[in-house]
Amino acid sequence: MAEYLYGRWPVLESLRAGRRTFQQLLVAEGADEKGALESALALAQERGVSVRYVPRRVVDDLARNANHQGVAMRAGDYPYVGLDAMLRACQERGEPPFLLMLDLLKDPQNVGALLRVADSVGVHGVVLQERRGVGVTPAVVSASSGAVEHMSVAVVTNLVTAMRRLKEENVWLVGLDIGPDALTPDRVDLNRPLALVLGSEGEGLRRLVRDTCDLRVTLPMRGHVQSLNVATAGAVALYIAWQARGWPGWRPPEA
Amino acid sequence: MAEYLYGRWPVLESLRAGRRTFQQLLVAEGADEKGALESALALAQERGVSVRYVPRRVVDDLARNANHQGVAMRAGDYPYVGLDAMLRACQERGEPPFLLMLDLLKDPQNVGALLRVADSVGVHGVVLQERRGVGVTPAVVSASSGAVEHMSVAVVTNLVTAMRRLKEENVWLVGLDIGPDALTPDRVDLNRPLALVLGSEGEGLRRLVRDTCDLRVTLPMRGHVQSLNVATAGAVALYIAWQARGWPGWRPPEA
Repeated sequence: MAEYLYGRWPVLESLRAGRRTFQQLLVAEGADEKGALESALALAQERGVSVRYVPRRVVDDLARNANHQGVAMRAGDYPYVGLDAMLRACQERGEPPFLLMLDLLKDPQNVGALLRVADSVGVHGVVLQERRGVGVTPAVVSASSGAVEHMSVAVVTNLVTAMRRLKEENVWLVGLDIGPDALTPDRVDLNRPLALVLGSEGEGLRRLVRDTCDLRVTLPMRGHVQSLNVATAGAVALYIAWQARGWPGWRPPEA
Repeated sequence: MAEYLYGRWPVLESLRAGRRTFQQLLVAEGADEKGALESALALAQERGVSVRYVPRRVVDDLARNANHQGVAMRAGDYPYVGLDAMLRACQERGEPPFLLMLDLLKDPQNVGALLRVADSVGVHGVVLQERRGVGVTPAVVSASSGAVEHMSVAVVTNLVTAMRRLKEENVWLVGLDIGPDALTPDRVDLNRPLALVLGSEGEGLRRLVRDTCDLRVTLPMRGHVQSLNVATAGAVALYIAWQARGWPGWRPPEA
């Protein structure tokens, strides 16, 4: 089934990753063909993807009035991977697995923002719970700035089963939670095969998901408003984990 | 000058903080008077703030069609503080200053999100650059979930002058930046009198602001999309700094 990606960076990253089929690049008449759009047009030509110029309102409709920046791409399905393939890929990287699991998150903005950060810290794969949760929709692709096009994402029908499968592979499951028996991240060894598990907006980890975690960490809070957005909390936890691992894979920019 | 705050939590936190004058609480007819709205109504009564029920479209207009959840508050100006008062308050807390400075951020969502995190980590005060930058507008109050109503915020006409003033007080200015001579946060002693300085979306730190910093830190990135949203990067940096300070002021929840 085809869908319409939108936004200059999301479309460009999708072409760069080259993992989907691409049917047609649609450009709003009068769009400024510079920067990421210029690169996307060049790459589309190179790949033999046809380009069609259409009135802006056509792109508005395809992007459901989201911020499309004058460009949409008719593309094939997002290339999900299986959990076993994801684990094999972890082994091939020669690094202890570093995974992210999202349980029933509902807001594409949150899912996309988390995927963008997961890409930044070099997470090897992301596991999403199907059913009621958000998959990799065009809105998620855009909210991730296209990062998800390069990433390994698995969708599973039962997150707890997937968690048990990861346990068999000696991956340590760390739930981000609140409560008296959750530890601050500096008191936990995060430099090991790791999957960070995040619960849904508002409700947090479901009981069985929580109980299946090996350990739960919490982000301290001392303010008046005693909550953080799940995308913010997840971003902080991912970075603290990557720091604890010694920033593997990071090459400082050259002087 | 009066303005209209909107949203259940923002209005409730504003009443709880009690630092503004409150002229009238407007509730959309048919709004569900539970949770935060119930608390806000009780507090308004206690404080002698009149309540008026109006058609929902009136609240739509006052909130400029933002997500107001059926409630708006006509309130006096946001109570900014001066830089000197902020520094005195730091001294009285008996903790080394922990400040946040925002240079010309434009997006109320980003500013509000950063203020919410700053509240969570117990930042003592926030300094905003006036002119082109965003002040504490109702949109910022909402994006902060009302946290900013409890916080000390100063607006300055010249951020560099404010930075120099902080240097005189032995506050260490750390810019969040990219580039070859920026250090990762684990290589910097963040447990000292500190002001974290963030530049604007897209453009980062202005040259003179950058040059006035004592040091610059960077968040490593290894992904395909080599950038983070400023609100995400700022949240991570604030939490890493608070962790480096040993989570002062945090009281773990009781068992």
